[in-house]
Amino acid sequence: MVKTKRLCLLLLRLLAFGSTLSAAIVMATSHEKTNFFAVSVEAKYSNTPAFKYFVIANGIVSAYGLLVLFLPPESLLWRLVIALDVVFTMLLTSSISAALAIAQVGKNGNSYAGWLPICGQVPKYCDQVKGALIAGFIGVIIYTVLLLYSIHDVLDPLLMQKT
Amino acid sequence: MVKTKRLCLLLLRLLAFGSTLSAAIVMATSHEKTNFFAVSVEAKYSNTPAFKYFVIANGIVSAYGLLVLFLPPESLLWRLVIALDVVFTMLLTSSISAALAIAQVGKNGNSYAGWLPICGQVPKYCDQVKGALIAGFIGVIIYTVLLLYSIHDVLDPLLMQKT
Repeated sequence: MVKTKRLCLLLLRLLAFGSTLSAAIVMATSHEKTNFFAVSVEAKYSNTPAFKYFVIANGIVSAYGLLVLFLPPESLLWRLVIALDVVFTMLLTSSISAALAIAQVGKNGNSYAGWLPICGQVPKYCDQVKGALIAGFIGVIIYTVLLLYSIHDVLDPLLMQKT
Repeated sequence: MVKTKRLCLLLLRLLAFGSTLSAAIVMATSHEKTNFFAVSVEAKYSNTPAFKYFVIANGIVSAYGLLVLFLPPESLLWRLVIALDVVFTMLLTSSISAALAIAQVGKNGNSYAGWLPICGQVPKYCDQVKGALIAGFIGVIIYTVLLLYSIHDVLDPLLMQKT
């Protein structure tokens, strides 16, 4: 029972690592050249601060996720992992929200501010950004589940001890 | 000792409630009329989805913060509060990141995408958004401190029990 649970959690962490890593890679490799009024323009992630933040945050969380995978199950560091999970889940949430906000403007524009949508000019770039956002979103959801599970796991035994 | 600690935590929660509420109100009341090429334009928060999300998220977290203030100290619901704190801190983090990403474009523009900065036209509106973001940021920091403290509080006694 304990072994199955541990295997499940490890699998979830592996999946989370995979999603954040692929999110970072897909976003970092997104670029497309286009001609805009006879001027060659290259759309790439590094032109947008929010997308750069997304790549850096997902890279950091991937590195953390990889390290946690190799933590021995008996280690007392697992107590620290819950606190670190909180910090890194917040970092991930923050990066994906910022990237999503910018991507929304890129797709629909904002007529009040006079910002035109750019996805019509660079559809391939937009699709790749969308893919990266979906991968990042899966990562956030898995980390949130892991975090809520850890909290439930730590608090429930206490409640049972009391009653 | 326990009483001082509880008072401190209550004070922090009160402060967090104040910041999220003022963030929501300051953002919701931000608007400025300006003439842009002989056309009257009104800049307000509801024109930007990310700012609307910011107001809604800060409103929800304020309501939650108010409810928690009236929770009796002996209540077993405090165990649930940790899990809820995780969810609401993530919501707050997400909303402030999205609003910050849009505000950054509003302030500096994005020359690659052809989005011009708008803060030159509506400086009062921009200042008010900046104020709301700072208030929201204070709220996020307090909630993160509370959350990490709760986790430390729950885990440390366990560690002492073991050794």
